[in-house]
Parts: sequence; structure tokens; C-alpha cells
Amino acid sequence: MQKSINYKLEQIGIIKTPYQNNAPYQPIEADKEEFYITINHRYVDGLKDLTKFHYIYLIYYADRIIRKTEMVVYPPWAEGKKVGVFASRSPVRPNPIGLSVVRIKNIVENKIYTSGLDVFNGTPLLDIKPYIKDLDNKTDANYGWIEEMDDMEHLMLHIKGIPHDY
Amino acid sequence: MQKSINYKLEQIGIIKTPYQNNAPYQPIEADKEEFYITINHRYVDGLKDLTKFHYIYLIYYADRIIRKTEMVVYPPWAEGKKVGVFASRSPVRPNPIGLSVVRIKNIVENKIYTSGLDVFNGTPLLDIKPYIKDLDNKTDANYGWIEEMDDMEHLMLHIKGIPHDY
Repeated sequence: MQKSINYKLEQIGIIKTPYQNNAPYQPIEADKEEFYITINHRYVDGLKDLTKFHYIYLIYYADRIIRKTEMVVYPPWAEGKKVGVFASRSPVRPNPIGLSVVRIKNIVENKIYTSGLDVFNGTPLLDIKPYIKDLDNKTDANYGWIEEMDDMEHLMLHIKGIPHDY
Repeated sequence: MQKSINYKLEQIGIIKTPYQNNAPYQPIEADKEEFYITINHRYVDGLKDLTKFHYIYLIYYADRIIRKTEMVVYPPWAEGKKVGVFASRSPVRPNPIGLSVVRIKNIVENKIYTSGLDVFNGTPLLDIKPYIKDLDNKTDANYGWIEEMDDMEHLMLHIKGIPHDY
């Protein structure tokens, strides 16, 4: 029952980050305006009232992925742990659709300045959705297999992209 | 700078719900196994360790949408309020990509039984990602423009799909 869907996707904008070629998870200087989204002009009216939300979801197409998709992956910094690709946030997956929750810092015309996110500069943006309290913040969420790791707190720093020295 | 992306999307599975033709937000009987996902067999190995998470993101293609996309939308039950499509969770958007956070109830072979979600039966599934505490639950999230509504609590019942009699 293998089935490809041929619908086209619209690029509604572009994500701008400092990450040109190197792997993400670099130190983030949160006070600089290094992370922003440029929305194509025909979609700007769709941003009305977006600024009232603290957080948004960004859905994007990770178009720089060249590695072959495997059903089991070895998450970085996880000591050789092997998990299913759908139990990971690896960008190398059957559909390279990325999802990030970011904070809105400012919206000026067609530019949305955000908190940091770990995608390459120029990544095509597919959608923005408001992150709505109660609907999206699940207070009884857990860490899944990450809870079984000896070095869980360190691993979470990597997963959250927080710079650290050890 | 209008640009369509022609990459194909893989259907990794199908979402099964009781919603055949009617609008969602029907009463949900949470004790029945009415909501589940069937994963295509070639992707089943990707589910390893997924069951350790309480919540997952489902990313799907809302292929039953026929209304024309508008940049401003009138959210249902919001008293004529007009907001940008990206400040809404309307399924009618430039890319009809849906996102839901659901609770995993059980995983049996290639079937994932979940809490309720408001999509039509047979919706193509594109991706599953683990919802990771601290990364995804933003405790300082807000309700955006919804906070300005007189009847905010009632509106949130609709947004969350919770049955109610008034």
C-alpha cells in the first residue's frame, strides 16, 4: 500500500538563520536578530493578529537532507541508543517535514523575528500555526526513552539546543 | 517569488476516525478505540520506542479540503472575529498540512490507538514525532487573540473539541 502524494506544496516564506553549512546546535546569542522568517508578500495578510501569540509552530521542508532514511536511528549524544525514526526528532525521516516551536520576538511587515531554531539558512517554510495554551502545552507530557538515559539532563541540553561547555 | 515545491510526500499511514462526512467536534467517547492510525508495514520498524512517550505529534495532509484558501478567516464560534489564516488553526490554508497533539493509548503491531482528533476518516499521515516535555510544552504560552473574546472559555471548549451542552 505504498503511496506517494503528488500534491504540490507552496513555499510561503523562507527561514533565515546563521547556519550556512555547519551542523546546528551552535551557541545562540539570543539578543541578536539572527533568526527570522521572510514571508512572501502574497501571504502577508495571513499574519493578522499573529503577534498576539507568544509562541508559534513553524512547519518547514528540510530540503538540505541528503542522507538515506533509515527506520532506526542513533540520536546524537545518546550513547549509542537506537530508536525508531518516529520516536526521534531526526530530520532524516520518510517525509523531511520539520516542526519547531519558537517564540515570536517581533513582527515587522513581512518579517517575523523569532527565538533560535536549528535549521539551515534558506529553509523553505510551509506553514505557521499559533501555539495555543491548553491545546498544545501538555503538562503531563514525558521524555519517553530519554528518561532511561544516564545522562538525561545533558542530552536535553542538546535536544533543546542550549549551549554548554561539558 | 511564488514558488511551488514539487517533492513528493510519502503516505506513511492512514488516520482512522469516526468522522466520515460530518464536521468534527462531535462528542468523543474516550473509552472506545475509535481513533487509531494504521502504519504502512514498511515503516513499522520506525515505531521502536515510540510507546514510551505519552504524547505524539501527528502531521497529516488534509486532503478533503475543497474551500478556497483566504488570507483572513472567521474562526467558528468566535462571534465574527476575523484573524489571519496563520493566526488560526483552520484547515483551509496555503498548505493543508494538519498538526495534532494526541495521547498514545496503545500500540499493537502497526496500529497506534490515540486520544481523539478532529480529522476525517482516511486522512493520509505524513509524519509522527515524539512530543518531548520541556522542548514542546511551553509553560508561558498564551491564547493570543482568543484572550480578547468575551466568551473565551466556551471558545476553548470548541478549539479543544470538548463536548458541551451550551
